[in-house]
Amino acid sequence: MNEFRTVLFIIGLMLGSLAIGMLVPAIAGFLQTSPDWQSFILSACITGFFAVALILTSRGELRPLTVKQAFVLTGSSWLALTAFAALPLNFSLIGLTYTDSFFEAMSGLTTTGATIINGLDTTPPEILLWRAMLQWFGGIGIIVMAIAVLPMLNVGGMQLFRLESSDNSEKILPRATEIAGSIAKIYLLISFLCAFAYLLAGMSLFDAITHAMTTISTGGFSTSDASLGHFNSLGIESVAVFFMIISSLPFVVYLQAIRGDREPLFTDAQIRGFLSLLVTIITTLWFYRMFTQDVSTGTALREVVFNTTSLLTGTGYASSDYGQWGNFAICLLFIVLFIGGCAGSTSCGLKVFRVQVVLKSLRRQVQELAYPNGVFVMKYNGNALPDSVTASVLTFAFTYFTLFGLIALSLGILGLDALTALSAAAAAIANVGPGMGEVIGPQGNYSELPMAAKWVLCLAMLLGRLELFSVLVMLTPRFWRN
Amino acid sequence: MNEFRTVLFIIGLMLGSLAIGMLVPAIAGFLQTSPDWQSFILSACITGFFAVALILTSRGELRPLTVKQAFVLTGSSWLALTAFAALPLNFSLIGLTYTDSFFEAMSGLTTTGATIINGLDTTPPEILLWRAMLQWFGGIGIIVMAIAVLPMLNVGGMQLFRLESSDNSEKILPRATEIAGSIAKIYLLISFLCAFAYLLAGMSLFDAITHAMTTISTGGFSTSDASLGHFNSLGIESVAVFFMIISSLPFVVYLQAIRGDREPLFTDAQIRGFLSLLVTIITTLWFYRMFTQDVSTGTALREVVFNTTSLLTGTGYASSDYGQWGNFAICLLFIVLFIGGCAGSTSCGLKVFRVQVVLKSLRRQVQELAYPNGVFVMKYNGNALPDSVTASVLTFAFTYFTLFGLIALSLGILGLDALTALSAAAAAIANVGPGMGEVIGPQGNYSELPMAAKWVLCLAMLLGRLELFSVLVMLTPRFWRN
Repeated sequence: MNEFRTVLFIIGLMLGSLAIGMLVPAIAGFLQTSPDWQSFILSACITGFFAVALILTSRGELRPLTVKQAFVLTGSSWLALTAFAALPLNFSLIGLTYTDSFFEAMSGLTTTGATIINGLDTTPPEILLWRAMLQWFGGIGIIVMAIAVLPMLNVGGMQLFRLESSDNSEKILPRATEIAGSIAKIYLLISFLCAFAYLLAGMSLFDAITHAMTTISTGGFSTSDASLGHFNSLGIESVAVFFMIISSLPFVVYLQAIRGDREPLFTDAQIRGFLSLLVTIITTLWFYRMFTQDVSTGTALREVVFNTTSLLTGTGYASSDYGQWGNFAICLLFIVLFIGGCAGSTSCGLKVFRVQVVLKSLRRQVQELAYPNGVFVMKYNGNALPDSVTASVLTFAFTYFTLFGLIALSLGILGLDALTALSAAAAAIANVGPGMGEVIGPQGNYSELPMAAKWVLCLAMLLGRLELFSVLVMLTPRFWRN
Repeated sequence: MNEFRTVLFIIGLMLGSLAIGMLVPAIAGFLQTSPDWQSFILSACITGFFAVALILTSRGELRPLTVKQAFVLTGSSWLALTAFAALPLNFSLIGLTYTDSFFEAMSGLTTTGATIINGLDTTPPEILLWRAMLQWFGGIGIIVMAIAVLPMLNVGGMQLFRLESSDNSEKILPRATEIAGSIAKIYLLISFLCAFAYLLAGMSLFDAITHAMTTISTGGFSTSDASLGHFNSLGIESVAVFFMIISSLPFVVYLQAIRGDREPLFTDAQIRGFLSLLVTIITTLWFYRMFTQDVSTGTALREVVFNTTSLLTGTGYASSDYGQWGNFAICLLFIVLFIGGCAGSTSCGLKVFRVQVVLKSLRRQVQELAYPNGVFVMKYNGNALPDSVTASVLTFAFTYFTLFGLIALSLGILGLDALTALSAAAAAIANVGPGMGEVIGPQGNYSELPMAAKWVLCLAMLLGRLELFSVLVMLTPRFWRN
């Protein structure tokens, strides 16, 4: 175990932070005289005990992580945090089994937003706060990972996003710490702005804080079963749309903008691609609904803008039941689910840059067929696109859909109907949250699913959030050989 | 048009053969005193007129085809043959619209096997014979194309199957003619053996001939609404299974075997992959049905072997309603649909070698993650696998599933329910035939679909059969520039 001493030490530190984080809902619950504050104190003690034990047994000189250790850290930290973050939910009086608590915690930390809690409107505030906090922490964790760790590990074409002077895999840890600091400040600033905007738009302080946390992380947990539809406010929906978009753009660009380089905000290929895609889909669905349904122009636009943004960014808020928009809309939204936002943001899915690389590769393929002797260079964001990146991205995309198929298949075996199985698999692997159909659609939740299905979906959320290969690589015997 | 003189001349020759082919059902109908023989005579006259006109206006010295001309020939010959092959169905007394006739002809020539004819058991024999003949001709056309034309055009990794001494794209035509001769003999021989076996197993001469034609081409048109289930004979089903498998293996291997080299029959990577896959799926479904359903061991095995082979080879015969086998079976068969048989056979789908290349690429990706400094060489069938082939195959696979999604989406817009839309899109692009669900499942047919949906499916069948890129390349403006 000496090989993984540093990994265990870092996980210990993370669990320690988690234990301290549990004190926040504990205090909130205590002030509201809600009895569940004790569950949080108990969970904080247990988590703190394990954290201290890990830190003490693995302390010593911090060494830079190797690639193998970075993989192990990525996967095991997410699992360990989820396992302990589930405790207060399991101990609380709302009576969740450990499976349900684990599902809810995984859905939180992966910023998925699928919930198994029935009756959110009457759930104690400390539970609602904890769910929001999990998504908020998950969001910052993802950005740090996407900017500082994944590009070093060459996962699914992420090597495209290596920062200058950071292409040395021996330096993962110091670089991660440095970037995490800057990004965390930006993340905190945007969260404050979002909470403030929600307040101005008419939310209570509690709702503003929890929703800001789940908006910025594109998580999508809400404090009401009706999600954001509960507030029925154009102002609140506009704030949500604005900040969901902000959170789906690469955070590195904000860092660059603050340091004086504002150009990427307008020229970055991912940002342009994401925004054009969003506008195109919104326009299409808007016209489709106006021509086929008895709905006013304004209502159609408002509903389409909100729900499309929510699904494309992988947030998963709902303001109306898009399951009623007709077959075409359902199919289109189903495809949109998979795409997601930009790499380096809190949003999820296949990511805009991968879709762009796949389309470029397709275009070159066709060009080469027409001109067998021509030489076609692929560029991305102004730079030449190496063949190895294209191959990584194509393999990633293919694996993504294969895993989606296998997960849907497993859910089918477990007795779910076709629409539920397909949309649950998609919503989990793309970390969106709500699925389609009566059971898990925007008006339902995941509580009725069989226990095994919930564990399958937990795995799907983890795979999706950790960019598949970070998990898959650990399943090979070769990885563990010395 | 001078550029395409040779292309027009070849299409003229093909239409001439089609016109002569129409005389066969005409004679059969006349002998049976069935009134529809006149529709065939009329169609033969029209087709013959156009054939002669094309041949006369474009005759002259035959020049070798360029790559561009080969693409145009591939796409336009299939369309022209379908347009004229639809005529006798349109003129006949069974009262099909031209859309329905075109759909049936396309389904025939692409060896798909989706039918819009209601009441096959009472359909005049000359119509049934014509449908079978279209599949039989489509089957030989596909093999010649896959062996002689596509490898030269670098379509979707088919460059893997370039024959020695044939890697010069200037020589497409003579090589095609030479190979077509040898393959046609083998094709004819296997067809005779199959018809003879069906006769021995108890079919009438007419049924034996028509079913041999649609078995060898993995087409799947039958002479009864109940498909092969109509005969309810273990002997007939065994013959079908044997010859469906034979027709899904690469025909080049038979050519090699006849010329004395029998080794590839046992060592070819595609053949081994295909057979292991078939056995694995059959075993899985067999156990699944025995454990979950009230069905005898023998019946379960017999039904699973027949229907799985039929779907994996893309034939599309049915002996029982596999829609009743439970969710898991439906999902697994749905995935099986996409795979298909070996490249260079009459079968369809993604093809076994592409699945193998994708899996190898996935494996290498994971290896490279674990060992960033390692060098991993991919091999296929004992030879190194060039990166360009892997990229072609990955792009092909991705495009395949994207087009599947778009086609399902279009069918959704046209009002089909989810299961019908998804399975129709899959069954068309993979050239399988029957879909899932009440409407287009093994017990139904395509007649009830809206007209626009039938045209969308025609496009899907053509795309699937011509390996996507042969069609896509012609949709780019660049292709048509000089």
